[in-house]
Amino acid sequence: MALLTVGSIALDSIETPFDKTDNALGGSATYIALAASYFTAPVEVVGVVGEDFATEHIEMLEKHNIGLDGMQVIKNGKTFRWGGKYHFDLNTRDTLFTELGVFENFNPIIPEKHQKSDFLILGNIGPDLQLKVLEQMEKPKFTVCDTMNLWIDLMKDKLIEVLKQVDVLIINDSETRQLTSEPNLIKSAQMIQKMGPKYLIIKKGEHGALLFGENQIFSAPAYPMTDIYDPTGAGDSFAGGFTGYLHRERDLSFESLKRAVIYGSTMASFCVEKFSTKGLEDLSTLEVKARYNEFKELSRFE
Amino acid sequence: MALLTVGSIALDSIETPFDKTDNALGGSATYIALAASYFTAPVEVVGVVGEDFATEHIEMLEKHNIGLDGMQVIKNGKTFRWGGKYHFDLNTRDTLFTELGVFENFNPIIPEKHQKSDFLILGNIGPDLQLKVLEQMEKPKFTVCDTMNLWIDLMKDKLIEVLKQVDVLIINDSETRQLTSEPNLIKSAQMIQKMGPKYLIIKKGEHGALLFGENQIFSAPAYPMTDIYDPTGAGDSFAGGFTGYLHRERDLSFESLKRAVIYGSTMASFCVEKFSTKGLEDLSTLEVKARYNEFKELSRFE
Repeated sequence: MALLTVGSIALDSIETPFDKTDNALGGSATYIALAASYFTAPVEVVGVVGEDFATEHIEMLEKHNIGLDGMQVIKNGKTFRWGGKYHFDLNTRDTLFTELGVFENFNPIIPEKHQKSDFLILGNIGPDLQLKVLEQMEKPKFTVCDTMNLWIDLMKDKLIEVLKQVDVLIINDSETRQLTSEPNLIKSAQMIQKMGPKYLIIKKGEHGALLFGENQIFSAPAYPMTDIYDPTGAGDSFAGGFTGYLHRERDLSFESLKRAVIYGSTMASFCVEKFSTKGLEDLSTLEVKARYNEFKELSRFE
Repeated sequence: MALLTVGSIALDSIETPFDKTDNALGGSATYIALAASYFTAPVEVVGVVGEDFATEHIEMLEKHNIGLDGMQVIKNGKTFRWGGKYHFDLNTRDTLFTELGVFENFNPIIPEKHQKSDFLILGNIGPDLQLKVLEQMEKPKFTVCDTMNLWIDLMKDKLIEVLKQVDVLIINDSETRQLTSEPNLIKSAQMIQKMGPKYLIIKKGEHGALLFGENQIFSAPAYPMTDIYDPTGAGDSFAGGFTGYLHRERDLSFESLKRAVIYGSTMASFCVEKFSTKGLEDLSTLEVKARYNEFKELSRFE
């Protein structure tokens, strides 16, 4: 059965200290699906674009065996556009503009044949939309959810509803503390697990990631990057690599989840090496495996 | 031959969200020597105290086989006192007062028999004093240096002189960036290695530590702590555990240094579990080894 993801599909205008680009392919569902496509197929996307969405993007996604049955194309509509500028240290960014376009009235409709998908990734969209998706699904075996500070600010109640129904929540360290008002990260993580998710993954950027299970913790290193060209999509790529690996392996043990965290980190590291989705477009299985092994070497001691 | 350390010996007044204490034993040399004492002997301390320094502290240190030949006791002098208050998240602290006392005119004199020590830890004192120590030594085999933001601000030139003569520099991530003005941590680390130290260790608190060697990087996890009672001395305990292990093993390969980083992290984790030096006073070798194994389990994946 398929791996289904629901999220945004966007055209991004990005400025970093190194370069800038306009109208490049972006969006959470896009990055998730591309990252997952290196592990498993089919990966099905539910999202919305306008008529201005270039055919070349569709072709590129289809080349990666990404199913677009669930991608609504709105006549005379304009695709969601986001413009952002990263600061010198690449850790902070300003949103320059947001043009919601067709995303403003996005109603995620899961095509009937995908309602039975057993692996689901709820990309970073409003928890109200995530709930609409969950309502249409026939009890997926494994649901992974991404979110962000904006939704914790604006729709905390709805987010808490979502958390009751997901297996894994992926957030960053400041969002973890924001969600619980608990400064100690470990305590904060335990509090979130009590809200529903059996597993919690805390992304810490240059400091790696933490995976929390039932009384188990795994600490994953960060890939040492000297040249980050564009951090956009790193978190989505993590979610895609993580879930894509598990969808292929069909092993949901903690040991398998650890490996999935490393594969998620692997895809995030490729993502940020190039602008937009370029870093995820032309990888080989060999390159992915080689970087996984670099992660292993990085944290190994006897 | 001995492991020699030079640093401050202090009486600390500490306030955390959980408790407070006055005139508790502290100082970089104290924490370093205690942490190292679980791995090797003799550990020799060079430092200065006043006549007010309690006999019970001396007895406790001697019980740990810590040699105090190099500890100057100044008649009618007052021991260095520091008062600090930790904020709710324990990551930031305010210095409430600093009374230098006998430390103001501290001139580190290395007793002749210790000038041949082959392992040296320069605790966190001014780089001018660290240089004075280095001048008196007969080419130690392995020198580890700690420093802090204050010295990067006030005595950067002298610190750079020190760096030319040490094998390992231990600093935290913000100090790394401060020293080089390079926001990318990996690039920044490489720049510092070019200043002299063959190895650099970047302590990242709750995010673990990084060890940089010649074209090799090791990422060490942080011990997941839910209850940090007093962060004072964590960095010093790290330096003591790290160097103490290496002094015992006499193996300076990168693999051995990795294990030393974990033993350093182990001692830092014990340190912060109790107030002042209490967390380092009554450990067993078994407890130390057990925590080392917990670190291993935390970051292991196949």
